[in-house]
Order: sequence, then structure tokens, then C-alpha cells
Amino acid sequence: MAKDKKPTLEEKRHSLAHIFAQAALDMFPDAKIAIGPAIDNGFYYDLDLPRTLIPEDLPILEEKMKKIIAEAQEFTSEMVPVDEAIEHYKKLDQPYKIELAADLKEAGEKEVGFTTNGPFKDLCRGGHIANTKQIDPRTFKLDRIAGAYWRGDESRPMLQRVYGLAFGDKKELNEYLALRKEQEKRDHRKIGQALELFDFHELVGPGLPLWLPKGAVLVEELEKLAKEAEFRYGYDRVRSPHLAKGRLYETSGHLPYYADSMYPPMPVDNEEYYVKPMNCPHHHLIYAATKKSYRDLPQRYAEYGTCYRFEDSGALFGLMRVRSLQMNDAHLYCTEEQFESEFMAVTEMYLEYFKLFNIEKYVMRLSLHDPKKLGKKYVNEPELWKKTEEMVRNAMKKAKVNFIEVEDEAAFYGPKIDIEVFSAIGREFTLATNQVDFSVPGKFDLTYTAEDGEEKTPLCIHRAPLGTHERFIGFLIEHFAGAFPTWLAPVQVQLIPVAEPHVEYAKELSEKLRNEFVRVEIAEPTDSLGKRIRSAELRKIPYMIVLGDKEVESKELSVRHYRSKDQSTKKEAKFIEDLLKEIKTRELT
Amino acid sequence: MAKDKKPTLEEKRHSLAHIFAQAALDMFPDAKIAIGPAIDNGFYYDLDLPRTLIPEDLPILEEKMKKIIAEAQEFTSEMVPVDEAIEHYKKLDQPYKIELAADLKEAGEKEVGFTTNGPFKDLCRGGHIANTKQIDPRTFKLDRIAGAYWRGDESRPMLQRVYGLAFGDKKELNEYLALRKEQEKRDHRKIGQALELFDFHELVGPGLPLWLPKGAVLVEELEKLAKEAEFRYGYDRVRSPHLAKGRLYETSGHLPYYADSMYPPMPVDNEEYYVKPMNCPHHHLIYAATKKSYRDLPQRYAEYGTCYRFEDSGALFGLMRVRSLQMNDAHLYCTEEQFESEFMAVTEMYLEYFKLFNIEKYVMRLSLHDPKKLGKKYVNEPELWKKTEEMVRNAMKKAKVNFIEVEDEAAFYGPKIDIEVFSAIGREFTLATNQVDFSVPGKFDLTYTAEDGEEKTPLCIHRAPLGTHERFIGFLIEHFAGAFPTWLAPVQVQLIPVAEPHVEYAKELSEKLRNEFVRVEIAEPTDSLGKRIRSAELRKIPYMIVLGDKEVESKELSVRHYRSKDQSTKKEAKFIEDLLKEIKTRELT
Repeated sequence: MAKDKKPTLEEKRHSLAHIFAQAALDMFPDAKIAIGPAIDNGFYYDLDLPRTLIPEDLPILEEKMKKIIAEAQEFTSEMVPVDEAIEHYKKLDQPYKIELAADLKEAGEKEVGFTTNGPFKDLCRGGHIANTKQIDPRTFKLDRIAGAYWRGDESRPMLQRVYGLAFGDKKELNEYLALRKEQEKRDHRKIGQALELFDFHELVGPGLPLWLPKGAVLVEELEKLAKEAEFRYGYDRVRSPHLAKGRLYETSGHLPYYADSMYPPMPVDNEEYYVKPMNCPHHHLIYAATKKSYRDLPQRYAEYGTCYRFEDSGALFGLMRVRSLQMNDAHLYCTEEQFESEFMAVTEMYLEYFKLFNIEKYVMRLSLHDPKKLGKKYVNEPELWKKTEEMVRNAMKKAKVNFIEVEDEAAFYGPKIDIEVFSAIGREFTLATNQVDFSVPGKFDLTYTAEDGEEKTPLCIHRAPLGTHERFIGFLIEHFAGAFPTWLAPVQVQLIPVAEPHVEYAKELSEKLRNEFVRVEIAEPTDSLGKRIRSAELRKIPYMIVLGDKEVESKELSVRHYRSKDQSTKKEAKFIEDLLKEIKTRELT
Repeated sequence: MAKDKKPTLEEKRHSLAHIFAQAALDMFPDAKIAIGPAIDNGFYYDLDLPRTLIPEDLPILEEKMKKIIAEAQEFTSEMVPVDEAIEHYKKLDQPYKIELAADLKEAGEKEVGFTTNGPFKDLCRGGHIANTKQIDPRTFKLDRIAGAYWRGDESRPMLQRVYGLAFGDKKELNEYLALRKEQEKRDHRKIGQALELFDFHELVGPGLPLWLPKGAVLVEELEKLAKEAEFRYGYDRVRSPHLAKGRLYETSGHLPYYADSMYPPMPVDNEEYYVKPMNCPHHHLIYAATKKSYRDLPQRYAEYGTCYRFEDSGALFGLMRVRSLQMNDAHLYCTEEQFESEFMAVTEMYLEYFKLFNIEKYVMRLSLHDPKKLGKKYVNEPELWKKTEEMVRNAMKKAKVNFIEVEDEAAFYGPKIDIEVFSAIGREFTLATNQVDFSVPGKFDLTYTAEDGEEKTPLCIHRAPLGTHERFIGFLIEHFAGAFPTWLAPVQVQLIPVAEPHVEYAKELSEKLRNEFVRVEIAEPTDSLGKRIRSAELRKIPYMIVLGDKEVESKELSVRHYRSKDQSTKKEAKFIEDLLKEIKTRELT
């Protein structure tokens, strides 16, 4: 690049990989180097070293990189004959580079690019800075060591991968590090364990969480929320078994299009039974169980159904990627005329939830089909695809919701909206979907008698605004850093009697609260007062009330609120009244 | 028997079988007769006939029986050499009787009993009336025709079986017929279909019900009830997946003792996964997830878990015998000292539920182990069996609950209480269980730190007062004949606007009710008023309100109550207030 042009961040990151390799060869002259691309937040380099790196090696390598930078090495690029490049690496005994160059030769390349800075020459197509001094040494940091198979192939050697972070300026790097620290602090697996929310057990199996009492509260409160909201929006609840014959999933199209994500079958009575990967086929049968006329539409069937999907065990991650999915599912059957208002009502429900959970940033992605994959990934109905995609696009525009369009991400039976939300610390989660199905109702012969007496096929909307409990709770843990709003908190009130004589009043107050279904715990005076207060803080319990002589006598409570750190004094009756109102309205205090 | 002794009902029933066979041979001289015992409500006879019987044959056979009775035939019994009996039947070409006599010969019998009445002679050990005139022809009735394999063996010929009803007097027979008619009217499968509560579908599979919207209301209201009751009794809720590795069920003892009732395994990641037949192993792991001290006990984990058990498809029956079981499950972990009060609290909960559902008659059966089957059907811990059986016996006596004891019906891990309840029409249902487990917690290494610092194993109580949704709802349908109390009713209020101008008020009132989560429907004036009223009656909706000019103007509602057939006039606000109170307190009006 021209020396006077300001390098891009991508170029800086790429160049840092070269600088790293040079430092590594300085530290380990026998190092075999492989590849080192720029990535999202910096760069990495894969190498084969005479010994396993330890974290203490990273500052040493970092120092060497800084020295190289201080040397103000120039980057120069040239094209050389491919055989010359192979010869160069043979001399240096760099087998990975030889292989890369040989592959280029086999692909028909006559010449390959070489980039040189200082004593280091690397096979590279370019895209560098002009001089190492263009890098501010305070903007990068070697980050961590991992393992990676050469060319991602399990049968090839395992290399060591060193990740480096690199940003445009020092502030950006520090912000990134602070955000990551916050993310680690909010890690749903860590908080989940500290707050005793969920557990995995080897005897049950990976990806199949057990919800401990405090975590089950979150699950059941979310269910209650969804049931209330869905009642308001005119949904009916249904219930379906977790098993069905394979023939059901053949009819629905899951076995042809989705078998890889399903658990293997169980042979019973000369049939194959599957645990359900989705609730929709069951709901279609419920629709079909009674005859419908246009007067009965829309029908909206909601179920908190648990589905099972076979994710590769390597892909499992805490609650974020699991094999059991408790889904806030529903299927809406409607006429074409009703589609727009139904679709918009679903969108409205999403927005209502976002407000409730204080989700300020979200993106809706309209996922479209890819015409080239009709009949393979997508049902082969080109006209219906066009029509329904247009219907969804119009409904979204009418609802005045911002959305982006992406190709080749639809469901096999129709277009869908994926909703990505951002947690309080700005991390992105794909949580919910809203899908249109113009195909499967017909396969199940679902009909309604139209006003003119004709039998017509309804459209079906699949929607799951709270997604799965697993992922949504994982998100909420990070979003609230485990300090849940009162209505959701596993323990809502912690009563702390100062000493034995105050326990009786604590029990009396607890009984009053429990009668109103408030989740209250008493921290009995077996530990010091300070220790018990600290424990309630650590458990992020919304309300903590210390009960001593004064409180027992006056029934005037000194109430500490965890999230706001407020402390207020309230008459017992007033406290209970305010608390119940806060819980009922699901206030976000 | 002596001629002057009044015959027993058993003797009458047995003799009626002889009379039936004589009548059948009169009607079909080629009939091959097999056996004809007395049974619970009468008798049956198995025969091989030249043609299939039709229901119209029964009155003809009945007439012939009455004629035989009118002949005042005497019953005489004698012993004859077994070879003579075989010879007798050879002459008559009666192969089934020949086989029976030959079997007696092979068993070493020298002589066999023959009973004669009129022209009919039968192989029989006795137990008859003295004369057919001792039977009042109004006390019996041929009932129905069925098929039965000879000697119950599928490889032997299929015979025709004719069932007859027979009682001590005319009134008893009529009462039996009336009860059966009522049972048929209350048949949960019939009502379930008429009220659109549930459905079975061939593509899902037998024994796996789909709950339609109106039936799902029953399921969810029962769950709500259980959750509220369990909160009051200090239970915590937990949630567990429906799948687990086979190794979990090996540890729990289910695979060794219970495999026949389990679905076959799914091979995943070199492990076998099963759908869970019970929730207990999962709850044990939840107990084990965090360290427990004596201060933490009792722990009470409740879950409405859906389990899957493999019942033979021939044994499946409506909701009464299914393969998916939504269980009102909980496991209580306690010390030996806590056992009695925990067990009594569970019993108290049962009695509370019985009252709520107006179950007036129930029997508790204490099921004990059989010492001969230790190590096979029961875990081999003779001392612990004795001790825990005694503990349960004492707790039951202390709770002053009537119970009976039965041997060889315990769970494999400990004694249990089975609770049989009787529906409003007197039919018996085994609904709920309460089991003690002294074995499995040890296998899972469940412990708590006792006051003295020692690690001890808790006892576990398994309990399910509402049993499974499937069977409990089947019971409730019969018990209430589909006319559920308001809190449970799928539709609670039916609004019937007389004509179009009254629809607006209906909608307004409906909105008010729905805001309070009342399940209300509007029957729009597309049909005649009479038809809509009749439809609400047929659907057994608790409250029906016809809205005409008067009501719209005065907001004074004329309310019909289905169960009491009461009709009252109430101000709108008062109606809503009373209704909400009735629902909240789960009144049984």
C-alpha cells in the first residue's frame, strides 16, 4: 500500500499476524508456521512448536512483537514463481507452507505473493500496512492459546493457535476488555451455578439441563407470563405428547428436511416413534380434530411444549445450545385476509415483551428462501414463496418495525422473521422467531369452510416470542446479571431476624407473604448478621429486611432494595401492598 | 343341595349357565359347548356354533331359558367313572367336553361329577339350585356376545361367549342396568368427544392423547391447583428433561426391575437414551446438585412431569390406560424423625383434594412386600422393609385414616399407599399413590450432614395425589358427568345476545370478564335463540346469560346456573364479583 495512506484496521490486524510469526520464530527457531488471518477482534496464528505454550509465554512474545514494531520494519510485497516459493520453504523446513504453496501450484497458479518485513518473508496475497511503526503498541494484546487441527481436519496434526486482540485505538481495546470482563462476570453458567439455578448431570446427558428449585421459578414465572399474555391475545392452550410415529414427521416434512436434527427412532409395535423435534405437527392434528368454518378462524393454539433436537455434543454450550427445548410455542391458523392483522398482533406481542424485559435494542431479520434451493432446502412452490414473502414484508412495513432482509435462511415451509435482541451489555442473541407456513397445512388436509361454502386451506403462523426457556433464561441471566426483577426473582424477600427473639415475628411476616404466594426466606440467626446480609446481597435477592427489636415492636420495616440500592422504611401492610402490586404488574424496578 | 335350603346367588348364576347351554342346544342342535362359570354379575357360556350369533338371537335364547325354568326341572348330581363321561361326550360329539374330561383323567381322577337337569347332563362338580323354579325369570337377562379363545390360548379355536346378568331380585338387576346406563352416559370417551376435550390420532399413536383447547383447560387448571396447594405445603418446583441415559435407570433400579414398562432406547453418542418412565431419578440428581445439611431438610421437589410407559396396545383404554402420563409428582427427602409428620401432611393433602372434588368414598390400601420375592420383585433389604412398613402403618393410624393392608403390591423400593376413590355413581378408580423409598436414595449417594456432623442418607417419599392428568380427568368426567364446577369448566360463561343489537353489550361484558381471566364465549345470533340455549345446555356450561333489550338497558343480568338449574337476576358488577369469588375459592356449586 501507499505509504501515506492510513492503514485499515483489517490491514493492521493482518500485519500483526506477520509480526507475531516473526516473534514466534525468534523465540522458537524450530517453529513450523502455518496460517495467520485477521479476525473479528484481532488475529490468530496457527503453529507447530517444540513445546506446549503456557500463558506466561504470551507477555514474552508480546515484548518481542513490540520490539519488532519499534524497529520500523517496512512491508514489501512481490510476486515470485510458485516453484521458487516451494523451494524457499523447503530450505526453511516449513512443511505447512510447502503444502500451501504446492496446493496453489496444483490449482494452476504460476506465481504467488510474498510479503517481507524485516527478516520475515511470508506467503501472502497482500493487504498490509506500510511500516510496523503504523501500529500503536498499546492497541494490541496477545489474548489466549487454543488448539486447532491443521486445515480443520481431525486426521491432520493438532497445531497451537495463539489469538491476539487488536483495535483501532487504545480506548477501543480497553472497552473490549472491559465488556468481556463484564460478560464473564455475567456468564450464565457461572451465575447459574452461584444462584443454584440449573445443573447438568452426566447420567442424564449433555444438553439436557435439570432445573433446580430456584431456576424452576424462572421457568414457571415465564410460563405464567406467556399464558397471561396469550390469554389476552385470544390464544387457546393445547397439550400434546412428546412422542409420535415417524409417519407424522414424514407427513409434516420434518423427516425429509430435518432428520439430522432429530433423535433416532424407537421401534414400537412395528412402527418407529420419535421424540418430537417441534410441536407444529401435533397442533395441526389438533386443528383437524374438529371441523372448522370461517367463523372459527383464526384459531390460535399455544403450548409450552418441550421439544428435543439432536445437536452435536461439541456444539452444546450451557443453556445457549441444548438438546431439550421448552418452547413458548403457538400456531395461528387464519385466512389470507386475516394474515396481516394476525402477523401484526404477533409483532406487537414481541414489542410488549421487549418493553417488559427492558430490551432496548433489537433487530428483526426477514429470512427469505433461495430460489436455487427449491425442492431441496425449501418446498418447491415458487409462486407461494413470492406471495408470502411479500405479505410478510408488507405487514412488517405496516407495523413500522425496522427489519433487514436475508436470503436463504427461511424455514423449509415458508419465510420467517428471526428476532435478535441485545443484552444490557450489548451482546447479541437470536431468541425468537415468527414464521409463515403456506405448505404444511395442505399436507395435513387442514381446511375450513369458507363463507361461500368452499373448503379452503388456512395459512399457519408459527411463533415463539420468548423462544426457548433455556436460551431466554440464559439471555436474562446475562441481561440482568442475575439480579432479576422482583416478579421473576427465585427468592423475592429475604427476612433477617437479628437474633432468636426476632425469629417469631419473621415467621409471622413470612406466613403473611406466603399466603399471597410471595417467595420469602428467613435467614435464621445461626450466622452473624453481617454474614447473612452479605449472603442475601450475593444472592441478589430483591428485598432484604432486617428485623430487630424496633421492627418487631413498631411493625415498621426497614427495606433494602437490591437493584436500586434504595433503603426505605415502610409500615408492614404498606410494604406488602406495594410488593404485591409490583409483582402483579411485573414492574422493572 | 337340600330342597328346602334357599339357594345362594352364586348357585343360581351357575345353574343359569346350565339352563343357557340347554337352551342353546335346543336352538342349535349341532352346538359344541365348552364351559360356563358364574361370574361377578351373572354368568357366561363359551360355545362353538354353526353361525355367528347376532344380538337378535339373545331374546330367543332368553325365551327358551324361561320355558326351561317354567318346566320346574330338578337338578341332580352323581359321580360317574371318567371313561364313562368321555364315552358320553364322544357319543354326543362334544370335543371340548371330551378334552376337559380327558384332562381330568390324566390328572388322575377316577370319577367325575355329572349334573343333570331335564334332558341336559353336564360335567360339573356341583353347586346348583334344587329346581329351576327357584329362579325368578325377572332376575336374569342375556347381556352380550363376545369372542374368547378356547382355554384362553390364541392358538386354539375362537369360541363365542354369551354373557348373562343375574341378580338376587328384580330390583337389583334393574339397579345394575340403570347404573350401567349412567356409566355409559358418563363414559369419559363419549363426553370427551362431545365436549371436544381430547382426541387420539393414528399418526401420533395409541395411548398418546392430544388435548384439544377445552381439555387443555382441565389440565392447566389442575396444574394450577396443584401448584398452589404445593406452595402452601412448602414444596419447591423443579423441572427435568424427558430423556436420560440408560445408566441413570440402571442406577435407580428401573432398568433391572421395570424395563418391561419402558419404551425402547435411542442410541446417541455411544449411549442409550430412554424417555423417562418416572421422574424420581431426575429429582434425586437435583437433590444431589447442591450440598445439604439437616437444616435443609425436608426438601420437597414437585414437578408436573410427563412420563412415558409402554403399555401393551391391547390394554390401552381411553384416558384410563395410556402411554403418556402427566404426573402430579413430588419427592420429599427427609430424616427418619421427620418421616411421620411429612407422611401425615401428604395424607392431609389427599383429604383436602377429596373434599374439593366432592369425593365422599375412598379406600387407602397399604401395599406391602412379599418376603418370598426379595431380590426379585423387591430390593433385598428384609429389615428395612419391616421397619418402613411399620412406620407407614403407624403414621396412617395416627392420621386416623381407614386403610386395608395387601401383600405383594409394594413398589420395588418400598411400601406404598394406593388410594382408590369412588365416583359419584359408585365406580372405583385407583388414582393416587404415596410411596416410601428407603433404597434408591442410597444408590444415588444422596446424603445430608446430620447435626452430629455425620453424613446420613435421607428417606424419600414419592407422592402423586392427583395421579396422572389422564386418569384423573377421566375420573372427573365420569364423576361430574362432564358438568364441571365453574373453576374447572372449559367455558365458564356463555353469553347469548338475543339479536344483533345486543352483540355489542355482549362484547363489552365479555371483555370485562376476560380481563379477569374468565373463560367466556359469545354465541352470536346466527342461529335461533332456542338452538343457542340448547347448545349451551348440551355443553354443560356453568353460567348462561341471555342478553336482550332489558339486560342491555338495565345491566341487570338474568343468570342460569347449569348444575343447580337455578335462575337468578344480578347486577352485572355483583355477578362478576360473585363469579370471581366462586372461581378463586374453587367452590363446588
